[in-house]
Formats: sequence, C-alpha cells, structure tokens
Amino acid sequence: MWNRTPSKAATLVAEGAVQAGEVAAAVEASPLVITCLTTFEDTRTTLEPAASALSGRALVTLNSGSPADARAMAVWATGCGARFLAGAVKNVPAAVGAPDTLLYYSGDKTVFDEYETTLKVLGGDTVHLGDQSDLAALYEMAVGAMLLPALVGFFQDAVAVQARGLDVSSMVRFAGKWLDMIKSLLPVYAEEIDGGDYTDAASSVNLFLAGAAHDRDLTEETNVDTAWLAPLHDLLERAAAAGHGDHSIAALTEVLRKSAQTA
Amino acid sequence: MWNRTPSKAATLVAEGAVQAGEVAAAVEASPLVITCLTTFEDTRTTLEPAASALSGRALVTLNSGSPADARAMAVWATGCGARFLAGAVKNVPAAVGAPDTLLYYSGDKTVFDEYETTLKVLGGDTVHLGDQSDLAALYEMAVGAMLLPALVGFFQDAVAVQARGLDVSSMVRFAGKWLDMIKSLLPVYAEEIDGGDYTDAASSVNLFLAGAAHDRDLTEETNVDTAWLAPLHDLLERAAAAGHGDHSIAALTEVLRKSAQTA
Repeated sequence: MWNRTPSKAATLVAEGAVQAGEVAAAVEASPLVITCLTTFEDTRTTLEPAASALSGRALVTLNSGSPADARAMAVWATGCGARFLAGAVKNVPAAVGAPDTLLYYSGDKTVFDEYETTLKVLGGDTVHLGDQSDLAALYEMAVGAMLLPALVGFFQDAVAVQARGLDVSSMVRFAGKWLDMIKSLLPVYAEEIDGGDYTDAASSVNLFLAGAAHDRDLTEETNVDTAWLAPLHDLLERAAAAGHGDHSIAALTEVLRKSAQTA
Repeated sequence: MWNRTPSKAATLVAEGAVQAGEVAAAVEASPLVITCLTTFEDTRTTLEPAASALSGRALVTLNSGSPADARAMAVWATGCGARFLAGAVKNVPAAVGAPDTLLYYSGDKTVFDEYETTLKVLGGDTVHLGDQSDLAALYEMAVGAMLLPALVGFFQDAVAVQARGLDVSSMVRFAGKWLDMIKSLLPVYAEEIDGGDYTDAASSVNLFLAGAAHDRDLTEETNVDTAWLAPLHDLLERAAAAGHGDHSIAALTEVLRKSAQTA
C-alpha cells in the first residue's frame, strides 16, 4: 500500500501491511489496485507515475466525480492497459467496512466478479450497476442530490421547534420516522414514473399545493425563512397548469425535464 | 360512531359498531370522542351541532392544521367543557393501526393517560408531546416541511437515470439507503444546533458549496432542471459569507432564522 502522506499509513503498517516508497512500486506489487482520493483528477494525477505499471492490472477507483470525469478516467485507464471499475461509497467515511454499507461499481464486470470478496471488505452491500464505467458516478450524483434539500428541510424544522424554546433533539425521532415514511413511498413513485401513469394519486399535486399554505403559516409562527421553498411551489403550479393537478405528486418528474418545459 | 357519509360506516357496522344518526348522538354515547377530518375548521363545523353534548367528555382530534388553528380549537373545545387533546398521524392513511405507526398528541395529559390503550389501536408508537395543545400541530408542520424537498430531489434523480434509458426502480434501493444515511446524521446535527457549536464539522458548508458544481454537471449530463436548487446554493453562500464556511452544514440553521438575516 501507499499513501501520499506516508505517516498516515502507520496504523496499517503496524497491522502487517507492506508500505511502498513510490506509487509505482505499490501498483507493481498487486494485480488489484484500489484508489481512494477525492476526485478522478486527483486519482489520475497520483497514478501518472505508475501508468506503465498498470498494464494487465485491475484498477478500482473510489471517489466522487461526474459521469463525464468517470468516462475520461476509463479512457485513460484502459489506454494504460488496465481493466477498470469505478466505484462510489454511498455513506459517510466512518461507515466504510460495515456489513450493510453500500458501495456500488460500474465498468469491467470481470474485475467485479474476480475481486468481489475483497471489495466486500469495504462494505457488505456491494453492487455492480453495469458495464458502462460512468454509471456509478451517474447514480451517485443523482441520488446525492437529495441530501442538501432534505437537510435544509430538517434545519428549517430545527428553527421552528427552537422558536418555541424546545430542543431540536426532541424532534429527531419524529423526523427520522418521517424519512422512513418517505423511503416507503419511493417504490410507489418509481413505478408511477417508469409507467408514466400518474392517475392513481394517493397524494396529488393539488394536495401539495394546498399544503404550500402551511409553509407560510410556518414562517408566521416560527420566524423561519421559507423563501427557498418558493421554486418548489412554482414546480407544483407548473405541474397543475400542465394538467397534473389531480395526478400523483410524482408527475413533478414531467416538469423537471428541461425538454418537457420547452415542449 | 358517526360518519358524514353514512354508507362509509357499513364495514364497521358489519363488525359490530353502533352507528349514530346524528353527530350529537355519537358524542353522547361515549366519554371519549375521536374525530378524523381534514382540518380543524372541518372538525369544529362538524361538531357544532354536538357542542353542548361535549361537556365533561374527552375530545381527541386527528387532522392537519397550523398551531394557531390548534389553539383556536382548544379554546372552543374547553369552552364547551371538554378536555382536549390534539393529535397528528405521522404516516400515510394505510399505515394507521400498525404497531410502529407514529401518532403524537399534545394538550390535556389526563386524556392521554386515561385513553392511551385505546389510542394505541390507531398506531403503536403513541407519544404525548406536552400540555400545550398546539405542539402536535407545530411538530407536524415543522417535520412535514421536509417532504416536498426530499421528494423533488428524488424526482430529479428519476429524470437523471431515465435520461440514460434506465428504470427509476433501479435507483430505489440506493435512494432508500441514502435516506437511511441522512436519518443517521440527524442526531448529530440536532446536537450541534442545540449546542450552537458548529466547529466540529464532518461536512462543512464549503464542502457543500464545492458540491453545488455537481448540480450543474447533473443538468448538463441529464437535462434535468435543477433551478429549484439555486436558493439552496444561496443559503450556502450566505452561510459562508457569515463566517460559517468551515463550520458544519448544520450552521445553515443560523441563516434560516429571519431575525438572523436582519441582524
């Protein structure tokens, strides 16, 4: 193994890992090369001195990045003669190694099949998404985009309970149950979107439009700034204007497509 | 029992329930009155003909509504001589009656204590939040505000995977795991907000600002309209400008307070 900051390897060396002095030596020492850096660009820059050593080896990257960056990395890695698998860790760093931690990969399936046991050490829930090397980056980017909106929703809730002199911690279990409920709805909405049929609406666009008034009540009651919700209310109104008022809230998907707007 | 649409009661009557012809007769028949309508206003309008019969009884309401509406309902109910408990169901209608379904209540604790066994029939996770009758409405409104942003995040993800010709259902388990991860972070953020100390930042405001670039990548890659995220990016920039750049993302709570903006 090798680290850009050699001292960071001390713990692993104490447990028996062999530390290489140069990145090329680390690559040469193993048929499987796993990298964990912040971006594809960092990864490529770091591996450049070992480019010729990559030939015939399997390269597995674990980092953030766009699908376009993943595709560029795949071109470079296969150009070096490596088999390439691009992975993403769908959790916080502390969760790496846990039995239910999800890591997904896309790219060369032979690498995944050959090293699945090793990869499962990083997280027990290990998935191959497909042969195209940018799928893991696509899924990571898509799913990751839920994080900030959900957190800002929670922070808004925090202001609301604090405005009454209550601890935010008193709300955690209720917010958690609410996330569980949202999770339980995802398969239903996915089916509606995949089928393009929004007519069996348990929760309609109009129901959410009526609920938008409650956001204004929340501002009045608790002094929280709910201005960030305005574009969401606009989406609801655009969906209703497009004839989706009585349809499932999942019909918002139709107005989120840029091509649908200009049609 | 009584229903505004008598035919809707047929199933319960078949199971042995006694159907009243008038709402007042239903109220007179029981020391505990539980209502389930859409709003506090609907509830009050419906109960008006039974107002005098409410004296000495316990009234439990289950509906949506603002804290202000809950307070008005409490004034009316106690004015009728009833003990009043305002409840909220934190789940979809189909989940009512399940052992882990959450219902919370606020208001007269003697009603909660006396009828807790009965209330648990509606959902096994039954909580009394406090004596103030508007607390359940406050928590429901606050926590409920997470729903639309989280769902729109998911619908955006749906557009992204569909742009690659993939089924949205292929993303459901990854999005679900991501919600689990977000849930696991809530106690950490609640502690930071309650303590007002954002300095131990696992994920900083600046990290999210850097991630905002990925939202633009997502638009380019998948043609999804991410314009609704712009105010969230503005919140990040305002937090950074206020000196929270290296602080935890939970510091966004500080810029969401309206008073903090004008200070």
